[in-house]
Amino acid sequence: MSQYPDRIRLQSLTDKITTAAEAAKLVKNGMTVGMSGFTRAGEAKALPVALAERARHEELKITLITGASLGNDLDKLMAESGLLARRMPFQSDAGLRKAINSGEVMFIDQHLSDTAEQLRGGSLKPVDVAIIEACAITEEGGIVPTTSVGNSATFGATADKIIIELNLAHPLALEGLHDIYFPEKRPNRHPIPLISTEQRIGLPYIPVDPAKIAAIVITDQEDSYSTVLPPDGDTQAIANHLIAFLEKEVAAGHMTNSLLPLQAGVGTIANAVMNGLLQSNFSGLTMYSEVLQDSTFELFDAGKLDFASGCSFTLSESMSNHVIANLDKYKDRLVLRPQELSNHPEIVRRLGIIGINTALEFDIYGNVNSTHVNGTHMMNGLGGSGDFTRNAHLAIFVTKSVAKGGAISSVVPMTPHVDHNEHDVDILVTEIGLADLRGLAPRERAQVIINHCVHPDFRPAMQDYFDRACATVGGQTPHILSEAFSWHTNMQQTGHMLGNK
Amino acid sequence: MSQYPDRIRLQSLTDKITTAAEAAKLVKNGMTVGMSGFTRAGEAKALPVALAERARHEELKITLITGASLGNDLDKLMAESGLLARRMPFQSDAGLRKAINSGEVMFIDQHLSDTAEQLRGGSLKPVDVAIIEACAITEEGGIVPTTSVGNSATFGATADKIIIELNLAHPLALEGLHDIYFPEKRPNRHPIPLISTEQRIGLPYIPVDPAKIAAIVITDQEDSYSTVLPPDGDTQAIANHLIAFLEKEVAAGHMTNSLLPLQAGVGTIANAVMNGLLQSNFSGLTMYSEVLQDSTFELFDAGKLDFASGCSFTLSESMSNHVIANLDKYKDRLVLRPQELSNHPEIVRRLGIIGINTALEFDIYGNVNSTHVNGTHMMNGLGGSGDFTRNAHLAIFVTKSVAKGGAISSVVPMTPHVDHNEHDVDILVTEIGLADLRGLAPRERAQVIINHCVHPDFRPAMQDYFDRACATVGGQTPHILSEAFSWHTNMQQTGHMLGNK
Repeated sequence: MSQYPDRIRLQSLTDKITTAAEAAKLVKNGMTVGMSGFTRAGEAKALPVALAERARHEELKITLITGASLGNDLDKLMAESGLLARRMPFQSDAGLRKAINSGEVMFIDQHLSDTAEQLRGGSLKPVDVAIIEACAITEEGGIVPTTSVGNSATFGATADKIIIELNLAHPLALEGLHDIYFPEKRPNRHPIPLISTEQRIGLPYIPVDPAKIAAIVITDQEDSYSTVLPPDGDTQAIANHLIAFLEKEVAAGHMTNSLLPLQAGVGTIANAVMNGLLQSNFSGLTMYSEVLQDSTFELFDAGKLDFASGCSFTLSESMSNHVIANLDKYKDRLVLRPQELSNHPEIVRRLGIIGINTALEFDIYGNVNSTHVNGTHMMNGLGGSGDFTRNAHLAIFVTKSVAKGGAISSVVPMTPHVDHNEHDVDILVTEIGLADLRGLAPRERAQVIINHCVHPDFRPAMQDYFDRACATVGGQTPHILSEAFSWHTNMQQTGHMLGNK
Repeated sequence: MSQYPDRIRLQSLTDKITTAAEAAKLVKNGMTVGMSGFTRAGEAKALPVALAERARHEELKITLITGASLGNDLDKLMAESGLLARRMPFQSDAGLRKAINSGEVMFIDQHLSDTAEQLRGGSLKPVDVAIIEACAITEEGGIVPTTSVGNSATFGATADKIIIELNLAHPLALEGLHDIYFPEKRPNRHPIPLISTEQRIGLPYIPVDPAKIAAIVITDQEDSYSTVLPPDGDTQAIANHLIAFLEKEVAAGHMTNSLLPLQAGVGTIANAVMNGLLQSNFSGLTMYSEVLQDSTFELFDAGKLDFASGCSFTLSESMSNHVIANLDKYKDRLVLRPQELSNHPEIVRRLGIIGINTALEFDIYGNVNSTHVNGTHMMNGLGGSGDFTRNAHLAIFVTKSVAKGGAISSVVPMTPHVDHNEHDVDILVTEIGLADLRGLAPRERAQVIINHCVHPDFRPAMQDYFDRACATVGGQTPHILSEAFSWHTNMQQTGHMLGNK
């Protein structure tokens, strides 16, 4: 009778093994579903397919909450099937993006630390069904997550029913990596006791009432690999500017040569900048971050990094193979926590994190747009960038100074969408240089950004805009409102931000 | 020999008593000065006058950091004397405002919880001279603050030299009201142990090295009284919408009839809304706020409020007299903390605060402008609104739906400055109604805001803008960039946001 005895250790639960199609019947039209998965890691693999299949043949629309983005084209599949009425708190899929921007799918773009708190506090409707990928179920019925934790702990704790996808493709060696902790209910919540990156404060599994486990589906499918591009000359130049700045902070006595815990946003630029730290003289580094990417393991292998706390692994194919093959070697230097903890404002402020995130664009006063192309069309979402930026010791944004072969400047007069404002942004870096905005008033910030971050092709036009805004309008933050978005409208009309070039 | 023995209890310090003019000589050209004072309460009274006098006759320019705004027209006096090269983190003076908007004074508009952390971490240049108003100096040389704490604890701990203004106009009965605590240095900071509004975690005075006390100036001058206007029909309507909403939250089991700790921004509207809670059925309320205004004491007197934690008192003349006369009655239900603590993200998140702040304007997607008229000209500053909004359980903004006799709508298509963005704002209230934005996507937020918050005179034009933005541009957050600021430019050109009306 015993099936998968090493993976399902509460014997009575083997009765719950069923097919994805059967399990999918637990989800009814109009329900809220909480699903594992964070930045293409550890998502449920079979239920999304089964639910999408149902949505093609019957009226089935759900609110889908995950950790973050899903791999294996599942967001595309679900969006195109018509399954998704509402989606939160993050995505990065081209197919879903199209449905969001056309208004078909209502997308709630949230700080990734907020969703669990909002579920707990009643600001969001409760989750009806949780669908969680696991590599094992403990003797107590606890769920051992796989390559991400995301919001799964909160989904498991709050949902009426739980469907577990037991994925045999994930090695059991993942067990022990996770640290599951729930902030207490308010009022009378105690402090979260975490005071260093490597500290464990919770359980290695998600504790749930086994009676809520309504179905177990066996899968055997790997995560998608990350799609980040390799470092290049521009990203190394950004890293070099950042290293030089951090060396000055060390020399000034603001931190030691081990710096403070590092956070790096998901994606090519932030990963490449972290990779650039391989060329630095810093040592004994630590990470308290959200997604652990290739650069984390490159820094481990180079002896630069001592410990990394994250919420998920998102790795290239070659790095994934390397990490899985050497998991025992890395295991005592790694921990995966719920995104509420990896991104928690209390912890970010307490540890004094150096947060490095990627800007889509920023403006001359240091306001950052992370999400909206032309201020209207969603790219991926805010992710954890705000969680870290708002409370970091140093809030740093990086981007290449131009895009689309030089037609677009990543520095603009005014961002048409503001995800992080001038009050929260300390340092901006492009391959051109670094702007240290700390303690500067807006007019001073503008001149530093123009001098250090704007590409030379755009610098004269930017200086001209700023000078005319000061001369003709003035104020704390000079702008010419009728012209503030002209670079964006030029781009739309002529294909170049400066118009007919 | 003993002068003011009840006020200066470390006998050796009486040698330091001197005139303001003499003490002012400790401040040199180019220095950074940290001065007490928070929202017209507890500011140094004599040194600003002496420094301004010097600046009229010699080259003397300083960076002035305070808690927040100063009373007694001191910011005006200092700005007009040419003393201020740089000013942070908040002000509310018409004379200084003029100097800021003309570009004469560089104003760094900061979250009020951030300044102390930035001083401690080296992101701001250190304070050379601290000037702190006190009602007494303890046997150990500790400074007992007066009607505000502000950043005085950090100034005292970090400055090279300290000037104390011993103000005899403040009753000694203020002693014991204060709770002075410093977060530890990073890394390895422990949790801040505060878990409830009434808990005391520090000392009743600011501990300083007495050797740093370079001068003591005796003053005898009261704080300015607050300038808030009385509640009116519109503010009561706003309060009523809010009470109805909170009653629903209680009925849904999200909180008890004592709610969660309340924070209210400084100024007429937020004070009047708090006053409106007198008409509610809630009881056993608590406040964990920044400024305690008249409404705090009205709620005490009505038996609605159990405890209030703040960083300063800012009271009308009659309420000030009432509070001082009855200080013993209130004293065990009040505490004043450093602004770093009253506004700390760790505490705000832990307590689950209900934050009520005033918007200058907000847009159809829920982005809030708290500071910049027409996106360019500074009004007062951000204050603590971001500290609370970013981490509150409920982030609420209130404003009247129109201003300037109906020429200005407080709800606009797009705010030309964003202090709090759609990711952080939960609830918007005008006298028209309340928009509950929780869990809604931007297009949904827009329709709820148009239906519930926009004044009927502006509603058709707003609906038309939103409909056309959806139809012609689309996206996650539909906008017509060429038209997004047309209401602001109409106002400038015609005196009405909708043009020639």
